[in-house]
Amino acid sequence: MDRISTEADARALAAAAAVDGERLWRRLMSMAEIGATPRGGVNRQAFSPQDAAARRKLADWGLMLGFKVSQDGIGNLFLRRLGSDPDLPPVLTGSHLDSQPTGGKFDGAYGVIAGFEVLEAIERAGIETRRSIELVAWSNEEGSRFQPGAMGSGVFSGRMDLDALMSVRGFDGKFLEDCLDRTLETCSDLPLREGRQPVGFYVEAHIEQGPLLEKTEHVIGVVTGIQGQNHYRVELLGEEAHAGTTPHIWRHDALQAALRVIDGLNAVMADPTDTVRFTVGRMEVEPGSPNTVPGRVAFTIDLRHPDGATLKRLGDAIPETADRFKGVCEVRVTQLSDVDPTHFDRAVVDSVRAQARALNLTNMEMISGAGHDAMYIARIAPSGMIFIPCERGISHNEAENASPDDCEAGARVLAATLVDLATR
Amino acid sequence: MDRISTEADARALAAAAAVDGERLWRRLMSMAEIGATPRGGVNRQAFSPQDAAARRKLADWGLMLGFKVSQDGIGNLFLRRLGSDPDLPPVLTGSHLDSQPTGGKFDGAYGVIAGFEVLEAIERAGIETRRSIELVAWSNEEGSRFQPGAMGSGVFSGRMDLDALMSVRGFDGKFLEDCLDRTLETCSDLPLREGRQPVGFYVEAHIEQGPLLEKTEHVIGVVTGIQGQNHYRVELLGEEAHAGTTPHIWRHDALQAALRVIDGLNAVMADPTDTVRFTVGRMEVEPGSPNTVPGRVAFTIDLRHPDGATLKRLGDAIPETADRFKGVCEVRVTQLSDVDPTHFDRAVVDSVRAQARALNLTNMEMISGAGHDAMYIARIAPSGMIFIPCERGISHNEAENASPDDCEAGARVLAATLVDLATR
Repeated sequence: MDRISTEADARALAAAAAVDGERLWRRLMSMAEIGATPRGGVNRQAFSPQDAAARRKLADWGLMLGFKVSQDGIGNLFLRRLGSDPDLPPVLTGSHLDSQPTGGKFDGAYGVIAGFEVLEAIERAGIETRRSIELVAWSNEEGSRFQPGAMGSGVFSGRMDLDALMSVRGFDGKFLEDCLDRTLETCSDLPLREGRQPVGFYVEAHIEQGPLLEKTEHVIGVVTGIQGQNHYRVELLGEEAHAGTTPHIWRHDALQAALRVIDGLNAVMADPTDTVRFTVGRMEVEPGSPNTVPGRVAFTIDLRHPDGATLKRLGDAIPETADRFKGVCEVRVTQLSDVDPTHFDRAVVDSVRAQARALNLTNMEMISGAGHDAMYIARIAPSGMIFIPCERGISHNEAENASPDDCEAGARVLAATLVDLATR
Repeated sequence: MDRISTEADARALAAAAAVDGERLWRRLMSMAEIGATPRGGVNRQAFSPQDAAARRKLADWGLMLGFKVSQDGIGNLFLRRLGSDPDLPPVLTGSHLDSQPTGGKFDGAYGVIAGFEVLEAIERAGIETRRSIELVAWSNEEGSRFQPGAMGSGVFSGRMDLDALMSVRGFDGKFLEDCLDRTLETCSDLPLREGRQPVGFYVEAHIEQGPLLEKTEHVIGVVTGIQGQNHYRVELLGEEAHAGTTPHIWRHDALQAALRVIDGLNAVMADPTDTVRFTVGRMEVEPGSPNTVPGRVAFTIDLRHPDGATLKRLGDAIPETADRFKGVCEVRVTQLSDVDPTHFDRAVVDSVRAQARALNLTNMEMISGAGHDAMYIARIAPSGMIFIPCERGISHNEAENASPDDCEAGARVLAATLVDLATR
């Protein structure tokens, strides 16, 4: 190891040491007050007043510490701490502040607040970096209100078109454009920056959202990639009729047709290795009256697999299966998104592993089962992720939990990795 | 036939002749403007502002013609034309003004407006009746917003308890009490009458809501009874989990459990004679996010059969079937209502048939597939119903239709029947 890298290593370890676990936890709990649910979770859906309030809180924290705070057209929020060579593309870190309707305190928020803790820690410790380090809170990662998800990173990476998204309507019937406008207005004092800008490296910290780290007693997941995921909307069109007078033989019952289609899909997706992830998470039944035969049913499909070819084969089977089981109803299948498996950059993965080892934290390589903004940013910059355990693997649930010690450990690895990459 | 009954018959035919089909049609179309939908139907759900506006319109029509107009605590609206012996219990006629969310112009409204046409016709023709004739618009017959349906006649007949209903919550989360209060306020100028009062006879006119009259080319259905109907709510409780990270073997997927339960129920309800009416009309999936495994699903069951014993046997099979197919989820089955088959009064049925014959209108006896307020009123007074054809048997649908001629014919039979019964 030469003198320069030893110096860089020392600086990375100093950054890790500067991380204050209690301050990090306080900020996590403070953020969780916004949209807090009675059962201990968070309801902070994308572009809602709660989501806007969370962004505002983060912006204010950044302004207080003198960072450069800005937002872009899709509502991504940026906090930059300048490096000694500010013209170099920055090292970017972050995640998202929006949540599922019955989400937890950590999904997304952990990565944002761990990133903020790193910025604050190195600022207070006076640690200089060559590249600037920038924190980002991406817009609408969850996609539970406005589809597709990971919209902020999708636009930033050029994978999605901002103008085309404006006509998207949420499940509550509201237009994305209106809700986004109101969100941007709450930070109208901030400069509006251009959408896409060069990125040196990207590192995202996140709770695992699965049980592997906890079950195998590791503190740090060195994430090597993300499984691919496709989203679909399936719509069955039947005919509304009176439940008391209409014989079954004359019914065009959209709900019964939807059940047959899902049953058929269950058979197609059956997998003895339990690697295929097939989920129907949302179903709308119309008109939704107990004594009217349903005339229209729409449901969503979330399909994931680590292998790109398998994912494509299963996805291709959806329209033909829906057609086979639709009966007397009509069926329409729309693919909403299509994300190939992601393979993270070797240099970033190696840095994460090296920092975890240097900090004496148990660690393992793993593939992410969940999608993250990193899957889009990995397409424009060398990227990686750091996972910490979450209790019983439960996420997208108000009971989601992570321990203060693990949160601190993850932030230390993040600090060391960001400072390491900022020297390159 | 003695002199008195001949005189009564002449008066009944005079009442029928006084009915003005064009005026009836104009009022039907005028009422259909309230809550009109772009596709030609009506959305006038119980205790909504539209429902209140419809009641107000009917009350104003009644006040203009000098009838005694009043309302009771559950929002039933009454218009009375006094008879020569006003202390006798009146002959009651009517139906309901509330509609399905995507309902038609005729379901309910026809019976109310045909009743109003009879009152107006005999008033203008100066036809005296012994008993008073009273028109009623029953509250919340549909039950599509607040369960159970037929609430107005249920309370009036003593079958439901007004106070107990106050805590009912609508599918939109609103409390019945609040919505009812606002509905009553729009008619706060009217006297508030006691709930239950003696009824001499009850006759309800309605579109058939099925295809039988049209297919067999009859104009008038002489309704002899109503099939029994039970309503249930089935709730599956699973566990919310992340769609990307949770293996299927660990999932407690409430939607997949609901599908298996409905599949099991389909088998139980299978009937080669197609007499059983089994409908799942409403399903709520929570949290309803595409990338979260559903933690809770609730669906409704509408079950009907003309035979009381069969209805009971099938209803009893629901909880055990739900339990058999619930898998790793929990299940709760709640029976929301339980109405035995109704057999109408012979004297009323005979009068309806006799008037249809006297008016030279093709007619047939039939059982009602749909539930009606008459099923509750038949428990406290001699009752019957008059059906007219509806296009292709389509009802609970914005495309619901009936011809002006058939509407007029039904109102003529209603006029003659009411005046006939009012002499008794």
